Amino acid sequence: MSIAPLETPARRAFYDKIDKSSMTALWTVLGALITPEPKSACVPHLWRFADIRAAMIEAGSLITAKEAERRVLILENPGLRGRSSITTSLYAGVQLILPGEVAPAHKHAQSALRFVLEGSGAHTAVNGERTRMEVGDFVITPSDAWHDHGNETDAPMFWLDGLDIPLIQFLDVSFIEHHGDDAQALTRPEGDSLARFGANMLPVDQTSGSLTSPIFNYPYARSREALDQMRRARQWDPCHGLKMRYVNPQTGDHAMPTIGAFLQLLPKGFVSSRYRSTDATVFTPVEGRGRSTIGDTVVEWGPKDIFVVPSWKPVVHEASEDAVLFSFSDRPVQEKLGVLREDRGNA
Amino acid sequence: MSIAPLETPARRAFYDKIDKSSMTALWTVLGALITPEPKSACVPHLWRFADIRAAMIEAGSLITAKEAERRVLILENPGLRGRSSITTSLYAGVQLILPGEVAPAHKHAQSALRFVLEGSGAHTAVNGERTRMEVGDFVITPSDAWHDHGNETDAPMFWLDGLDIPLIQFLDVSFIEHHGDDAQALTRPEGDSLARFGANMLPVDQTSGSLTSPIFNYPYARSREALDQMRRARQWDPCHGLKMRYVNPQTGDHAMPTIGAFLQLLPKGFVSSRYRSTDATVFTPVEGRGRSTIGDTVVEWGPKDIFVVPSWKPVVHEASEDAVLFSFSDRPVQEKLGVLREDRGNA
Amino acid sequence: MSIAPLETPARRAFYDKIDKSSMTALWTVLGALITPEPKSACVPHLWRFADIRAAMIEAGSLITAKEAERRVLILENPGLRGRSSITTSLYAGVQLILPGEVAPAHKHAQSALRFVLEGSGAHTAVNGERTRMEVGDFVITPSDAWHDHGNETDAPMFWLDGLDIPLIQFLDVSFIEHHGDDAQALTRPEGDSLARFGANMLPVDQTSGSLTSPIFNYPYARSREALDQMRRARQWDPCHGLKMRYVNPQTGDHAMPTIGAFLQLLPKGFVSSRYRSTDATVFTPVEGRGRSTIGDTVVEWGPKDIFVVPSWKPVVHEASEDAVLFSFSDRPVQEKLGVLREDRGNA
Amino acid sequence: MSIAPLETPARRAFYDKIDKSSMTALWTVLGALITPEPKSACVPHLWRFADIRAAMIEAGSLITAKEAERRVLILENPGLRGRSSITTSLYAGVQLILPGEVAPAHKHAQSALRFVLEGSGAHTAVNGERTRMEVGDFVITPSDAWHDHGNETDAPMFWLDGLDIPLIQFLDVSFIEHHGDDAQALTRPEGDSLARFGANMLPVDQTSGSLTSPIFNYPYARSREALDQMRRARQWDPCHGLKMRYVNPQTGDHAMPTIGAFLQLLPKGFVSSRYRSTDATVFTPVEGRGRSTIGDTVVEWGPKDIFVVPSWKPVVHEASEDAVLFSFSDRPVQEKLGVLREDRGNA
Repeated sequence: MSIAPLETPARRAFYDKIDKSSMTALWTVLGALITPEPKSACVPHLWRFADIRAAMIEAGSLITAKEAERRVLILENPGLRGRSSITTSLYAGVQLILPGEVAPAHKHAQSALRFVLEGSGAHTAVNGERTRMEVGDFVITPSDAWHDHGNETDAPMFWLDGLDIPLIQFLDVSFIEHHGDDAQALTRPEGDSLARFGANMLPVDQTSGSLTSPIFNYPYARSREALDQMRRARQWDPCHGLKMRYVNPQTGDHAMPTIGAFLQLLPKGFVSSRYRSTDATVFTPVEGRGRSTIGDTVVEWGPKDIFVVPSWKPVVHEASEDAVLFSFSDRPVQEKLGVLREDRGNA
Repeated sequence: MSIAPLETPARRAFYDKIDKSSMTALWTVLGALITPEPKSACVPHLWRFADIRAAMIEAGSLITAKEAERRVLILENPGLRGRSSITTSLYAGVQLILPGEVAPAHKHAQSALRFVLEGSGAHTAVNGERTRMEVGDFVITPSDAWHDHGNETDAPMFWLDGLDIPLIQFLDVSFIEHHGDDAQALTRPEGDSLARFGANMLPVDQTSGSLTSPIFNYPYARSREALDQMRRARQWDPCHGLKMRYVNPQTGDHAMPTIGAFLQLLPKGFVSSRYRSTDATVFTPVEGRGRSTIGDTVVEWGPKDIFVVPSWKPVVHEASEDAVLFSFSDRPVQEKLGVLREDRGNA
Repeated sequence: MSIAPLETPARRAFYDKIDKSSMTALWTVLGALITPEPKSACVPHLWRFADIRAAMIEAGSLITAKEAERRVLILENPGLRGRSSITTSLYAGVQLILPGEVAPAHKHAQSALRFVLEGSGAHTAVNGERTRMEVGDFVITPSDAWHDHGNETDAPMFWLDGLDIPLIQFLDVSFIEHHGDDAQALTRPEGDSLARFGANMLPVDQTSGSLTSPIFNYPYARSREALDQMRRARQWDPCHGLKMRYVNPQTGDHAMPTIGAFLQLLPKGFVSSRYRSTDATVFTPVEGRGRSTIGDTVVEWGPKDIFVVPSWKPVVHEASEDAVLFSFSDRPVQEKLGVLREDRGNA
Repeated sequence: MSIAPLETPARRAFYDKIDKSSMTALWTVLGALITPEPKSACVPHLWRFADIRAAMIEAGSLITAKEAERRVLILENPGLRGRSSITTSLYAGVQLILPGEVAPAHKHAQSALRFVLEGSGAHTAVNGERTRMEVGDFVITPSDAWHDHGNETDAPMFWLDGLDIPLIQFLDVSFIEHHGDDAQALTRPEGDSLARFGANMLPVDQTSGSLTSPIFNYPYARSREALDQMRRARQWDPCHGLKMRYVNPQTGDHAMPTIGAFLQLLPKGFVSSRYRSTDATVFTPVEGRGRSTIGDTVVEWGPKDIFVVPSWKPVVHEASEDAVLFSFSDRPVQEKLGVLREDRGNA
């Protein structure tokens, strides 16, 4: 463990002098810069969907989706207030589209995922194709792709937004363009992408420069059915139960280059082994109830609640009913850079 | 074009002398070794399923699947007789399993695909999992994986076998082991692989050393539905109509390392542009009728017929009905080695 | 361009209320979060080596390398003071080791590069091998690899340190361990890594899980000679002159997963085309003099000076003598995440 | 082990009948098609360079390089006579260029390696660059690249040619074009490729579609020096001594997509452990003497001799002097297709 060297008057004078030349003595800050373990201000926290929903309904009466461009309430980690971050690298918010509303077309360098919490049939359009969304659907709007949302149903639509906004800001590579129209032109029939790329076949001459999956809606009905089929094998991971990651069918890599998304089944009564990893993770249950012990914090969760597990904090999940949890983190980034660490059971 | 140098008596004497030392003068054979264009003995040919079926039924009365180990009639390219090859690098045959029969468990370095032609419900088991097969299903038995077949239905089952036998023989890497039991033990429920790897998700900690897809049955029902969905986009490739390749979801590469498999829709009335490629290809229509002009050869095809297009022979397909064609070739090998060539339209 | 919606009393009240629940209205911060172009506080700046050197010599009299653990003066971007960063994602500092000193062995998740500015023969040890360093050598200490430095010569040794400290801090994946001994045990002869991995051959059974190059010293003598050889081809890139990136011979990728390092020759009189990219870059000339116009800032540079070009700021380089520039940036990160943008000439 | 089923008259009649329809019963040939172990006709054999040289000198008086296009004597495996093959998949020959001669420019799909046996200073030109060749240099002429050879020295030049001719023939993808001129135009200075790609740096914007190394001459002086440096670590592989593979610096993969090339040091007195692999390998010693036991065959070798080890035949090497062996095989093909097998020590 490095202890900062004593500060003598001579040293102090030296620090002040070099400060004028935009220099700082490493040994005065080394301990804070390179910590023995991950040590951010990010804390465990749970937001109840009931509270979010109430606030969103009120927001709905205060501003239109169009005026807001996106009517979203950011879930700010209590330890990272003012940074629009739920973890150090990721952003999360809940978006509401009321019947008849649109969220106008734009595109940006930031990658976004949507995970539908409530409602049925509102749509997102990406690259000229529209998809109607249902609860539990995992929807992607890739980096630099035109996208717009609309709700032609008669009920409000709520979804969780997960974006790499803090990462893009940190890397200093932000770009955004506004389309001008509320909705982009539709050039492909609904369902085309899923059929073309999702049936374990690819177009014979397909070559894509994109790192993002060409599938932009992974329907819950299909993912859920797969979990049901798999559970019959009775192979439970002690830390994860039955945990799947959404993939880009062109590469087998994560569906998005900067955000990993996961769907996980915990059977009734399952208690996971202690687990920790360096990718701080945002969870939202789709079905079932249970609780998670995150370091010293216990969160009780039910459908649509949203909670966060910080980097390297040990977590234990307990399911009091069959539970399905969606989660996302910056795991693809940490894997690509070779810095991901995991600690299974002996945390 | 290189012309072989004149043979003089002195040269002839020299050739004879060095022959004793296991040496040959390159210039006497160069023209035959390195040809300006692909120039094998492989010829276009079509086998009618009706003929194959009749022969197989007769075979069924002459030998059991068990005595034969595999009751298969090899489709030998007329230009390559005696080499058990349908193209220079690939093998094709039609296999029959009668009600109550088994094809005992074995494993070999050779990779195999099965494409079901007739029958419903006979099974193949691979790596401890059984799959029931239907017409049009694309089934894989990977290199060095235990596999056995059985028919517990009351009707005969016919499928097309495609293997890399000539390639493995050429590379001199053949291995086979016999299991001893007719059927391997089943350790996973039916459908587990498709659910686990086929729903555009992968197990979170999945890492595989295999180059072969972990999905071993790509059901026709699903593939066909995808084609129907895609055709609504009305994007036809002039040479291929709507052609998809089966992929390994872990990599996006071909489903098998040595054999590429494809499913292709040709709408009624479609006439393809002339196309040629260096990967000699075996076709079998699943639905519909039409004809293909292969160089100077015309073949009229219908469901379950099997025909071969040699390397670099220009082909034009015409569909008189909506047609779905399955095909396979050594394309993955040619791609991995960087030798694949295609010529679109201007052949 | 998005304009923040008007703040009404009702909205203000709402913002205050949701603030208590760790929520923030996206539309109040969207413009700042997702900017039309990169927009960090990072500014162009140049540090004169003469100034750095004088400060370091003074530091040498104030603290030992051992007490400091590393005697380094951090070059803090004037726009990012207090963040120990030269760009938003990278750290740079200058390290001094006096004759007879050691910088004790430790290892950390952070990856480090060293680029030697002054001195000859001091050493760095990595993974049991020692390398003696000369001016212009590019030296790597990989993530999580034991490393220590020492100077057994009779002159001070100065080098530029480039690390991914801010990135590792941002991703919340910092780990450090102290070895206990000043120097790790040496298990391989000096020069072994360069011979084993640097001669365009690799050990026949070599397989490495590391994303970092197994070569840890790229000698300047060799790199410089290669540039001299290449310049004879007279192929100059209008934006870069003759610019090379250091590579990991096992993959052809960048030598380090988080930091790209480059060596570049600008012939006397060369004036580059305007160029901008999203990877903010730190430059240090090894030979020659010239100036660079970075946005509206002009910096005059000579050997060992250090200057920074922020993300998306157009730069023009002019060489008044044959010049060789070393540079580094987070390009590998941006490439792996698919967010790198470049703009050549028409900036 | 599969025993061919009994041939009954009825079966015989059936075989004759289906033969007319280009069909064969698998069970009559299965045992020969899928063998328990590799079982080609390829045999161990050694050619003495003295014998080859004498024959080549005679060939030199019988035909010019230009008339022959390439004056090469093919080394035909005694077990594969008439197939122009040294192993089932590869071709080897020895080429002679006399002073003042040229081997005119052509290009073909086949990839070629040259390993220089005798002479100094004759040249090969590839892609507009010329390289002068010395004994032990490993030179590549990539698939579909113009290449020509010439000898402007006053002594004959001999080298070993290794090509994938049988493989390209088997895959039916042969193409050749003749340039028309004896020598292609030179567009790059000699040594440019080695400097540009061989110094562990790559051009910053380099992207290549080729699977073949952009370095086309790996000088022996450099490779040999690396081996000398490495041997100081005293890490000997029991099967291989110190064995390196030539790599493509852009990928870290083999230098050629179809042929793996290796350079190996066996210290005086070294006796290797028994080793076998499925890639039949051609060896040629550059320095030193020794003997190799290949199955039941013993070959005594010295500089420039050429010998072949068939697939899966166990081999033991013994070096009576410090020895350096060059070798090549189809290992990249077997690795890419996932069929390579090795057996170390317990053969």
